[in-house]
Order: sequence, then structure tokens, then C-alpha cells
Amino acid sequence: MINMLIEKIKKTNAPIVVGLDPMLSYVPKPLLDAAFAQFGETPEGAAEAVWQYNKGIVDAVYDLIPAVKPQIAMYEQFGIEGVKVFQKTVDYCHEKGLVVIGDVKRGDIGSTSAAYAAGHLGRVQIGSKSYQAFNEDFATVNPYLGTDGIKPFIDVCREEKKGLFILVKTSNPSSGEFQDRIIDGKPLYEHVGEKVAEWGADCMGDSYSYIGAVVGATYPEQGWALRRIMPKAFILVPGYGAQGGQGKDLVHFFNADGLGAIVNSSRGIIAAYRQEKYKEQGITPENYADASRLAVEDMIADIAGALGA
Amino acid sequence: MINMLIEKIKKTNAPIVVGLDPMLSYVPKPLLDAAFAQFGETPEGAAEAVWQYNKGIVDAVYDLIPAVKPQIAMYEQFGIEGVKVFQKTVDYCHEKGLVVIGDVKRGDIGSTSAAYAAGHLGRVQIGSKSYQAFNEDFATVNPYLGTDGIKPFIDVCREEKKGLFILVKTSNPSSGEFQDRIIDGKPLYEHVGEKVAEWGADCMGDSYSYIGAVVGATYPEQGWALRRIMPKAFILVPGYGAQGGQGKDLVHFFNADGLGAIVNSSRGIIAAYRQEKYKEQGITPENYADASRLAVEDMIADIAGALGA
Repeated sequence: MINMLIEKIKKTNAPIVVGLDPMLSYVPKPLLDAAFAQFGETPEGAAEAVWQYNKGIVDAVYDLIPAVKPQIAMYEQFGIEGVKVFQKTVDYCHEKGLVVIGDVKRGDIGSTSAAYAAGHLGRVQIGSKSYQAFNEDFATVNPYLGTDGIKPFIDVCREEKKGLFILVKTSNPSSGEFQDRIIDGKPLYEHVGEKVAEWGADCMGDSYSYIGAVVGATYPEQGWALRRIMPKAFILVPGYGAQGGQGKDLVHFFNADGLGAIVNSSRGIIAAYRQEKYKEQGITPENYADASRLAVEDMIADIAGALGA
Repeated sequence: MINMLIEKIKKTNAPIVVGLDPMLSYVPKPLLDAAFAQFGETPEGAAEAVWQYNKGIVDAVYDLIPAVKPQIAMYEQFGIEGVKVFQKTVDYCHEKGLVVIGDVKRGDIGSTSAAYAAGHLGRVQIGSKSYQAFNEDFATVNPYLGTDGIKPFIDVCREEKKGLFILVKTSNPSSGEFQDRIIDGKPLYEHVGEKVAEWGADCMGDSYSYIGAVVGATYPEQGWALRRIMPKAFILVPGYGAQGGQGKDLVHFFNADGLGAIVNSSRGIIAAYRQEKYKEQGITPENYADASRLAVEDMIADIAGALGA
């Protein structure tokens, strides 16, 4: 799957991933009204609104991008109906040929991590049959529990040709509270980065490992250091756009081959229709998806400019 | 909710929680056969088997215990059908008067943690209406992302009178890989424990905070140290029984008032029917739930003996 992701990045010239994190407050009013008219102000109505919103965006941008990253929390908040739309979104993105990174940040111990891995990346055995549940291509995982929380995910990735992005240095303001603490002369995130490199060494695709890392765009210096510590790990970079990361901050996350990172933008793309910049280009809530397409094109240009491509 | 949990612990004299972590391999053959006969070897069939299995156990033990802890990974592995049974199990345990600790180990940043908190502990706003989704009473959360990953959960707990158990020192063999690393003269888990005490200080019930911690039974010395660092935090203690923790290891997790900890056992209770010890007492797969009841009684006696009660 890492090979396919890289191939798609090369083909689109877009090392970017669109975060499908649909807050209900982002859904344009016409869609929301239509969904509520049909299903009421209910979880079913919210789920329908989110689904139509996602579908509009995916239809508008799928040919420009290699991948999407649905954030499962935004679906789980609506309960079962929300989880159904998560599944539907994953399936639809697959139909459109997109790589799907499930931003699930799971992580537990032994058999429990194995169950998460089966549900999100692999298959579950039921009697004599096996089934895929959510079937994402990559999943984000949390390393706090150590190797035996990660290993079951790696085993499933090897078997199913899937991949991971392990949280190393997250994009949020307080990520340093634990991640930056100094242990034996270097911060915890570097120790985690070393482990990611170690775990990933036996999991190589053609040029990169399918065991990647999450490093926030908001921490470019740390990105520089981690790029060197994990030269073969693909880095998923959140925090671009709405969280403050800019194109010029991103150069540190890439290798000399122009690869090695994929940059996420969520709100900046899916809610682009609310930005003055796009309103001035004639965008209304009705054609919100056109704004998402414009925002993707702008992001591609920003990153290409920064990388000198 | 922390007050209710403590009240129930006092009433039952049982500082224990039953982990509803239903691996399909634990489900007794008669239940599995019946579910497959009705729904086939499908996710629906697996979900029905898990549901009947859970219901049998809950019916057999609910009067002896204060709380249950369903592990959501074991449900997520079956996809939507599994998540439905998670929800059904939470609801049923509430009907039976049990406190429900959702072992979900979620954790993300800002608005994403807020969405998880809304979905699992709070309510989500849909138009002019608000809904509870999974509606657990407590949730386990992962601290790797720092304060701004935890704060949204705390806000929801305050509003909804719910609670958290934050991962501090987990029960698994490799938990020390990061958690034990020394920072400024003490291990990372102690730093996390200090934060739990700090976060919890403003979140007091009558005698304990509703911001608790997870510390594994397999690490009694660390439990001793953490008990002192977080005197007002209730400690959820996994790792008893199948993972190797014993009654005598648990004394360190309790305060002098005989409170302050709740010990989880999953496999040791829900799959007790497979143990020779209970087979010798006439247990068969048909009456598996009776074995669970015997195992709960044995666990209560073991812990009471260790605590000198």
C-alpha cells in the first residue's frame, strides 16, 4: 500500500491528503436543511448531512489527490449512524481510487491491539469465513503502550499489505508536555522516532517502509531531526493550514527525492467555502465543493513552491 | 459518577470490574452454534453470539459487582454490527444498574478529543436537539498528546458528571519502553501521574476525583509510588488474573480508607467456564455464566483477603 500511495503521489504531483473531519458546523446550510427535512434533527439526519457533504467534496477533488484521511472521532460522536457513514465514506473513497488513511489513533495491548488491527486494517475470522470490517489502507496508532501495543498492527499490515502512521510528535500546542521531555539527552519523540525506524526496518516497500510516523507541520525543526532519524519512514504531517503550518515549514519533512511526506489539511479544504478568499471567487454554500477543489489546487501550488518543484 | 461508583463498591464490598472483552473464541459453543444457525457465519451472527454471551454473564453477576468495562476493540473488530452490540451492552448494563467504564483508550487533539468525549461520555448537538451516543459513565484515555488532548474530555465529564481513567502505567510487558524512561530523575509514568493529580484537583467528587488513572496490577511497586503521587485519583487496575496480577499485589493500589482502586478481570471471569477449577465444580459450556459468578466470588474473596477485610 505504501508503494501505491507513493505512485499516486507521483502521478498527482500532490503529496497531500484531505482530512475528511466533518464537524456538523462545517456542513453547508442547504445540505443540512435537506438532510434534516428528510430525517429530522436526528443522528440519521446528521449522518445523511455528513455523507452528502463528504461525497460532494470527494467528487470534486478525487482526481487531484492521492489520499483522504477521515477522522473517526467526527463520526463516532453521532454513534452508530456516524460509524456507518465512516464506513460508507471509506468505501466510497476506495471506489474513487483513493488511498484511505483511517485517523483512528488506536493503541492498546496484545490481543486488544490485534482486534483493532483486524477491524480497521485486516479481517476478522467468523467461523469458517473471514470478513473485512472498516478496511482502511493505513491507520494512525498511539505508541504510549510500547512495542506490544504496536506489534499486532504491524503483523496485520504485513499480511494485508497495509500501513501505519505512528504518533511521534503531534501538531497540538501541548504536544511537548510529555513528547518533548528529555531522556538520556534527547526528547521522548526522538526515542519514539527511533522505535518507528526500528519497527519499520523489516517492513519495506520499494523505497519506503509501510510503518510511517505522524509529525506535526507546526514543529518544523523537530520534523528536520525526525526526518534524519527515520529516513525510510513516510511522514504524515497534520497541522497545515488552519492549525498554522505553512508550505515553507514543510520542506524539512521531505527527503532529497522529493518524497517521504504527505501533508494533511482538513478544515482548510473541506470548509474552504467559508473563507473570504473563495467567497470573492464566487463561492456560495451551494457550490462549497468547488471551493474545496480550489483550496486543493492552492495547497498543491503552495507545497510545490516550497519544495522548489 | 465517581460518588456512585464508590457507593456501589461499598455496597457490594467488591472493588472489582468485570471486563466484557468478548473474543469469539471465548463464546461457548452452544451460543455460537445458535447464533450462526440464525444469522450464518456473518458479522450479524458474531454480534448475536457476543450479545447473548455478554447478557448471560451480566445476568449472572450484576448483583455482585459495581461496574463493567467493555473493551470496544473487541466489538469494533466486527465493524458496524459489533459497534451496535457495544452500544446494546452499555445500555443493558445500565438497565441492570451497573456503572459502565468504556475501555476505549481514545485521545486526540482539541476538537477531535471533544468529538470523542461527546460521543462516549456526553451529547452531540444536532440542530436544536442533543443526543447521547454511546453514553458510557467513564472512559479510558491516552495522555500522549498532553493537556489539550485531555482537557476536552474533562470539560464533558464536568458537565455530564462522568469520569476518566487516564493511562499512566499500563499492564503490558513492554509498557516500560517509553513509560519507564527517566526524565528529571523520575520515570515518565510519574510525570503523567502528577498531571493526572493536577487535572483531577478541580474535579473532586465527595472523597475522590472523577479524573482517575490506569495502573497495571502487574506493576505493584509502581502502583505504590503512584498511589502516593495521586492520592485522590481512583485507580483502574487491569492485569489481574490472566495477565499475572494477584490479590497480594493489589494492596499497594488502595488507600488506608480501603478505597481508591477498582480491579479489572476480563478473561478470568468471562471465560472462567474453560478453567479446570470450575469444570471440576460441574461447569459445562451450557452453564458458563455460573462459572463467571463463581469466579467473581473467588476474586472478591481473594482481594478481601489481601486487603485484610
